Amino acid sequence: MKTGESIDRFLTEALRGNTGSVQGWWRRKVEGVAALHLGFPDPAVFPLKELGESAKAVLEEEGLTALQYGGGPLAARLKEIITEWTQRAGRFPEGREMMLTMGSQQAIDLVCQLMLEPGAPVAVEAPTYMGFLTNARNYTQAFLSYPVDENGLVVDAMAGDLAARRRAGRPLPRFLYTIPNFHNPAGVTMSLDRRKALMALADEFDFLIVEDDAYGRLSFQPEPPPSLQALDDAERVIHVSTLSKIVAPGLRIAWVVAAPSIVKQLSRLNVASSGFLHGVVAHYCLRHGLDERVERLRDLYSRRCHLLLDLLEEHLPPGTPFTRPDGGFFVWLPLPDGVSAVRIYERGMVPNGVAVMPGQSAYADGQGDDHLRLSFSFAEPAEMERGVKLLSRLILDEMR
Amino acid sequence: MKTGESIDRFLTEALRGNTGSVQGWWRRKVEGVAALHLGFPDPAVFPLKELGESAKAVLEEEGLTALQYGGGPLAARLKEIITEWTQRAGRFPEGREMMLTMGSQQAIDLVCQLMLEPGAPVAVEAPTYMGFLTNARNYTQAFLSYPVDENGLVVDAMAGDLAARRRAGRPLPRFLYTIPNFHNPAGVTMSLDRRKALMALADEFDFLIVEDDAYGRLSFQPEPPPSLQALDDAERVIHVSTLSKIVAPGLRIAWVVAAPSIVKQLSRLNVASSGFLHGVVAHYCLRHGLDERVERLRDLYSRRCHLLLDLLEEHLPPGTPFTRPDGGFFVWLPLPDGVSAVRIYERGMVPNGVAVMPGQSAYADGQGDDHLRLSFSFAEPAEMERGVKLLSRLILDEMR
Repeated sequence: MKTGESIDRFLTEALRGNTGSVQGWWRRKVEGVAALHLGFPDPAVFPLKELGESAKAVLEEEGLTALQYGGGPLAARLKEIITEWTQRAGRFPEGREMMLTMGSQQAIDLVCQLMLEPGAPVAVEAPTYMGFLTNARNYTQAFLSYPVDENGLVVDAMAGDLAARRRAGRPLPRFLYTIPNFHNPAGVTMSLDRRKALMALADEFDFLIVEDDAYGRLSFQPEPPPSLQALDDAERVIHVSTLSKIVAPGLRIAWVVAAPSIVKQLSRLNVASSGFLHGVVAHYCLRHGLDERVERLRDLYSRRCHLLLDLLEEHLPPGTPFTRPDGGFFVWLPLPDGVSAVRIYERGMVPNGVAVMPGQSAYADGQGDDHLRLSFSFAEPAEMERGVKLLSRLILDEMR
Repeated sequence: MKTGESIDRFLTEALRGNTGSVQGWWRRKVEGVAALHLGFPDPAVFPLKELGESAKAVLEEEGLTALQYGGGPLAARLKEIITEWTQRAGRFPEGREMMLTMGSQQAIDLVCQLMLEPGAPVAVEAPTYMGFLTNARNYTQAFLSYPVDENGLVVDAMAGDLAARRRAGRPLPRFLYTIPNFHNPAGVTMSLDRRKALMALADEFDFLIVEDDAYGRLSFQPEPPPSLQALDDAERVIHVSTLSKIVAPGLRIAWVVAAPSIVKQLSRLNVASSGFLHGVVAHYCLRHGLDERVERLRDLYSRRCHLLLDLLEEHLPPGTPFTRPDGGFFVWLPLPDGVSAVRIYERGMVPNGVAVMPGQSAYADGQGDDHLRLSFSFAEPAEMERGVKLLSRLILDEMR
């Protein structure tokens, strides 16, 4: 072996098959460019002082165990604290178990490792969360993409395809990855009828459902329908949620709620975690609770969302059918015929420009150059206004 | 699907093949039982006050980015700080790159995910670190075990087996997992001759080497030979190290140093990390450095090691050939003929008893009931003395 020689011969079949590039641009803030691309929470509302006090308290009160493998007594309580909080909101059906993970992204990786391998299909929404696609491509390249409309996943389209696959003797998906509430990037929420139809479909074609509910608590008005897991008599749903949008992403606190048989298998995998962080967050939750924060954030992001919608209304061509989300962080913007999302993205990334997420990264199959994802969670109002004005100018210019 | 129904049909082939149980006992401290089983650092030397100050400083100085995805400017400097520190110790050969991981255990998981799949063999020392076996079993069941003696891995034995495998057309290992310095659990250090022979063998049979150097900086006297990576002209070595034993495990700071082609592939995998923790540790390192701590820990663990050796000398049957480590945390203790490690373990786990690690968990193939691993890193001197006295009484009793 020599410097620069390919290491392909040592790689698994799954990884040799992954030729996609890893995109990092969507996590970078470029100075001076209006950040409508970042799916980040607003850092101005992070409870910095309180978390600093909790960090200090954990180290002072639990010195001998807080920094040891596994953490101390406070860390051990975090699961119970989050369980109680989610139960109180009716989001933890009987008979399920919880496992903590390092952010939702680790939860996603664990379910992929559990079920995906070369040739094993996985069903996704089109569009879907690009972080899921990037991750799942390390395990399989067999994506089954099903469309999303204003009521969420088009379950009939999925049903038709699965029936055809079964007739043709082709493999069915092991699971569907879905974001039923305030979809990333589509901004839509799955209707109750669709949720019920999806659960029936899962029974008919025997697949599991990974329900990513990163944004579920950040509803504006009205509340979303019951979670898929709440409608799930057969324990098919692996529910994933997180404090990243509620407290702060850097703490990497997320969790899976699923049938005990599934949690048992997931917990056999390598679950990187920091007992110290668990202790800090447990201390914070015990002292301050989470409910007041949630209320404050719903209010904040609702106002930001409406500001973005008003700006789009004002500056884009009349009748542009962007989504009007009931929660979450994102608006999904269809572009006029012939206008390329990648071109808009590229033209926007200049000094004093505007950063947007081109739609293609949200599709398994290269569609999506006709959409942009806009985030209202991160940019301050003035930055947002500047960004939308620049964006609409770019779009109008491209239409010429 | 019904409650309690098997989920095997959704699992990957690799995970369906893993029928081993996950052992957790070796990470638990049982009140009142002398803890000679725990491979934990002594928490009395964790820099609690300093880390508390660093946590507070990071939150105060970098409020808007410290808790965001990816972390702030201090977090971004951690890799450079550790790179500089390892380079200064001659542990970072030219042309390699570093990647941070959530503890060594995540690094191990990533290299397993990169290279192991059903049917792909992996070479291990016998005995080896049980955490590696537990992890690797999620990817393959094909372990090739090669013996360890007082000079480390018996490279000749590995050479003979690989030659036979090649003649028989059987697959060669994708990598060897080895702990050349202050082996866990065997306590031995690989000699320079063996290291050179191993590097030649890797070239001959075209495998990579995962060098786990969790304990390398904690040498007593003399210094261990150069790392395998320092002897590696062909960029075959993936070097793994950690601050878990130097600062504190709960911070989960570890790293991989390897060829750029390997780091590039590893970084495509899901690397859970906390920018906040990176920031805290970077701040701590910039303010306090690591060298004084290392000196202090070498002294502490050296004294503990010699105490354990003296106690074993005093209480065990004369001539018992336990290892005399030059660093690290562990002594490997062969039991008299017919004495079972599992029985000693079970009999020890009573109130006021003694906890030890039975050897079997360190072998891929069920050997090892004739050895115990004893740790000198965690128990206080009085606890250690009580533990060794109890242990020797149990051993003598089992010999009757």
